[in-house]
Amino acid sequence: MPSVTVTRRAHFAAAHRLFRPEWSEERNRSVFGDCANPNWHGHNYEIEVSVHGPVDPTTGFVVDLKRLRDLIEERVIRDVDHRNLNLEVPWLEGIMPSTENLAIAIWDRLAGGLPEGARLRRVAVHETPRNSVEYLGPQEDGAP
Amino acid sequence: MPSVTVTRRAHFAAAHRLFRPEWSEERNRSVFGDCANPNWHGHNYEIEVSVHGPVDPTTGFVVDLKRLRDLIEERVIRDVDHRNLNLEVPWLEGIMPSTENLAIAIWDRLAGGLPEGARLRRVAVHETPRNSVEYLGPQEDGAP
Amino acid sequence: MPSVTVTRRAHFAAAHRLFRPEWSEERNRSVFGDCANPNWHGHNYEIEVSVHGPVDPTTGFVVDLKRLRDLIEERVIRDVDHRNLNLEVPWLEGIMPSTENLAIAIWDRLAGGLPEGARLRRVAVHETPRNSVEYLGPQEDGAP
Amino acid sequence: MPSVTVTRRAHFAAAHRLFRPEWSEERNRSVFGDCANPNWHGHNYEIEVSVHGPVDPTTGFVVDLKRLRDLIEERVIRDVDHRNLNLEVPWLEGIMPSTENLAIAIWDRLAGGLPEGARLRRVAVHETPRNSVEYLGPQEDGAP
Amino acid sequence: MPSVTVTRRAHFAAAHRLFRPEWSEERNRSVFGDCANPNWHGHNYEIEVSVHGPVDPTTGFVVDLKRLRDLIEERVIRDVDHRNLNLEVPWLEGIMPSTENLAIAIWDRLAGGLPEGARLRRVAVHETPRNSVEYLGPQEDGAP
Amino acid sequence: MPSVTVTRRAHFAAAHRLFRPEWSEERNRSVFGDCANPNWHGHNYEIEVSVHGPVDPTTGFVVDLKRLRDLIEERVIRDVDHRNLNLEVPWLEGIMPSTENLAIAIWDRLAGGLPEGARLRRVAVHETPRNSVEYLGPQEDGAP
Repeated sequence: MPSVTVTRRAHFAAAHRLFRPEWSEERNRSVFGDCANPNWHGHNYEIEVSVHGPVDPTTGFVVDLKRLRDLIEERVIRDVDHRNLNLEVPWLEGIMPSTENLAIAIWDRLAGGLPEGARLRRVAVHETPRNSVEYLGPQEDGAP
Repeated sequence: MPSVTVTRRAHFAAAHRLFRPEWSEERNRSVFGDCANPNWHGHNYEIEVSVHGPVDPTTGFVVDLKRLRDLIEERVIRDVDHRNLNLEVPWLEGIMPSTENLAIAIWDRLAGGLPEGARLRRVAVHETPRNSVEYLGPQEDGAP
Repeated sequence: MPSVTVTRRAHFAAAHRLFRPEWSEERNRSVFGDCANPNWHGHNYEIEVSVHGPVDPTTGFVVDLKRLRDLIEERVIRDVDHRNLNLEVPWLEGIMPSTENLAIAIWDRLAGGLPEGARLRRVAVHETPRNSVEYLGPQEDGAP
Repeated sequence: MPSVTVTRRAHFAAAHRLFRPEWSEERNRSVFGDCANPNWHGHNYEIEVSVHGPVDPTTGFVVDLKRLRDLIEERVIRDVDHRNLNLEVPWLEGIMPSTENLAIAIWDRLAGGLPEGARLRRVAVHETPRNSVEYLGPQEDGAP
Repeated sequence: MPSVTVTRRAHFAAAHRLFRPEWSEERNRSVFGDCANPNWHGHNYEIEVSVHGPVDPTTGFVVDLKRLRDLIEERVIRDVDHRNLNLEVPWLEGIMPSTENLAIAIWDRLAGGLPEGARLRRVAVHETPRNSVEYLGPQEDGAP
Repeated sequence: MPSVTVTRRAHFAAAHRLFRPEWSEERNRSVFGDCANPNWHGHNYEIEVSVHGPVDPTTGFVVDLKRLRDLIEERVIRDVDHRNLNLEVPWLEGIMPSTENLAIAIWDRLAGGLPEGARLRRVAVHETPRNSVEYLGPQEDGAP
């Protein structure tokens, strides 16, 4: 069977802040700019989760999109929507909540939970209409 | 000269929270839901500012859009972008930062600063891709 | 208190067909073109529901958006999503499912159910990215 | 019958320049900025044409959208798409091609050609994703 | 010459239904959910067709976009727009009209018709704003 | 460290024309259609610049997006915004300003200027909402 990539979009709104606690306020400001604001700021995040696999000849599906939607909801959206990414998300503890790290962490939340036959291919995170990030998984890291 | 409405869009990202300090956490949760989260959440806000007036026969403009852009930048965006709407914006002090109140407050920031001949007609605020608000000014309040 | 208009967007996918049963196939084709196709076609519909009213000084809301979202879901989306607009929607029975008539019928579904203090102001229906319709209610009909 | 507003979107790409020939290059630059560039610049313009009227009880239409689409194509798009708005459009001769004046000129091109029963209600022109203009016709000019 | 990928978007509206005729209504409902509705439903489909090849040094083109647009129109849009994907499209006969299978079938319609020098690289189909699929052709199937 | 791709979008408006000076007007028209118009036409161009590299464990960044934004502004946008791509851009001299060639030229402008550790991965140029191009760099040219 031919293989196809299926993408599901989801949305959440959250607060965050970029800073290193061991640095001074000045150094945080100089590295992270306004993103270091101690009083937080936030975004509407759009995420895209892409799954790859052969098309099931009976259903015509790579994956049941309702199952993918529910997986994203339960493993990601429920934990981050209307939350503070620095303080309230167990699977982001100790992680700088940059868009890059968010994409990696969302990948790690989802990779193990996919229905049989489907492989996670890409997680994209849009932080603003102008800035986005995509992660293709550990095998893309350019190891020799 | 015919009159035309000109609209400029702008964008900012901010944290906020909906709650009344005199209420218990439970009551805040029951009225405001997740929006009451004490650890904040945030959004990418898109705003639209519409200005109405006669078209200048020399320039073909209702208003110089660069002046309108700068006015929005100086009076609104600079104060709210990457900020906490509850804690850091002088002109939102004491105001519940709902989308409704944001639209009214932005109107009040801009109404007095427009170039001669142009009148503020509409301020729209998009809090998420699904929720937005528009305010047409005090004369629209249905007073007799 | 100032009055503000709040808009909530919702989405559904449906099949429909434009035709008059008392007309011949040819006449239906000549009036409705491809929209008369006896085997149906369909759309992703985006709807916008706008509600107007004074801002509650305690909550900063015209209307609780979660209540508005639920109202739209229960009175509209549940009945039309993944349905055939000609055959399966009780409140569209006997109504040609043009975008115009859909907007009017959605208005009629929602107007009576709004929370106290809020008045329905506008229902917009986007049938394709290029075609849309808005209905402002019976008082806009130009009656004297 | 209830009255409804129907909107059709269309698209064109054109070059233009804002300048007054009787002014020096310096003065043109100081008033129009980069828009005065003697070598031209250009845009993708999105236009929205809104038509208002009673819904025909037989068809469910305010206006046959194919007729509206063709009218916009023949009276507007054909003349401006891939053209220079200063040099090549007969109905813009002697008119500064600002977005404001474009909206008015498009209104004038369309107002007389609508099918019986439908009235032009609004012409919007989006010059960039951040700048747009809308014209509601001569009756909106605030004359007594 | 460097090689570049060129993408053209197109749009159609169609009805469809996901079901297996040899299954009971219950089983179809349990596998396909609302998509199995015997009375059909439909979508606005957005497709993206990407073509890869060296840039012609004379024209600066990988492919004449007007030829690509016409090819998509003649081989795809004309057959599916305002149609029922289960009943009326010869090249979908016997194929479950899932988004995955649509992407593969559109690939097969286009792959043989491209101008010399250009190779089909990707077909994407957006069924709703939240669900999409992309197919990179048979060589992407991971066969050894 | 895992590697991630970061994308920044930017926007400019410009005039251009597709033609070969050594060809007759007729031949230019027959090859380039309306794009050959001697009086120019123009577009709003959206560009996407994607950069790939390991995530810095201290900042959580592949690249400081403000530096990437500034690089795009200084090396690309400043030279092309509100300009004529055939006449006024030194780094497009002698280059047919097709979307394909624009993407390659923007790649060449940016590839050398990236912060250490980040590699240019993709330049996309959207000329209209329906037409776009992406260039993945010289290593993608299919050389053996």
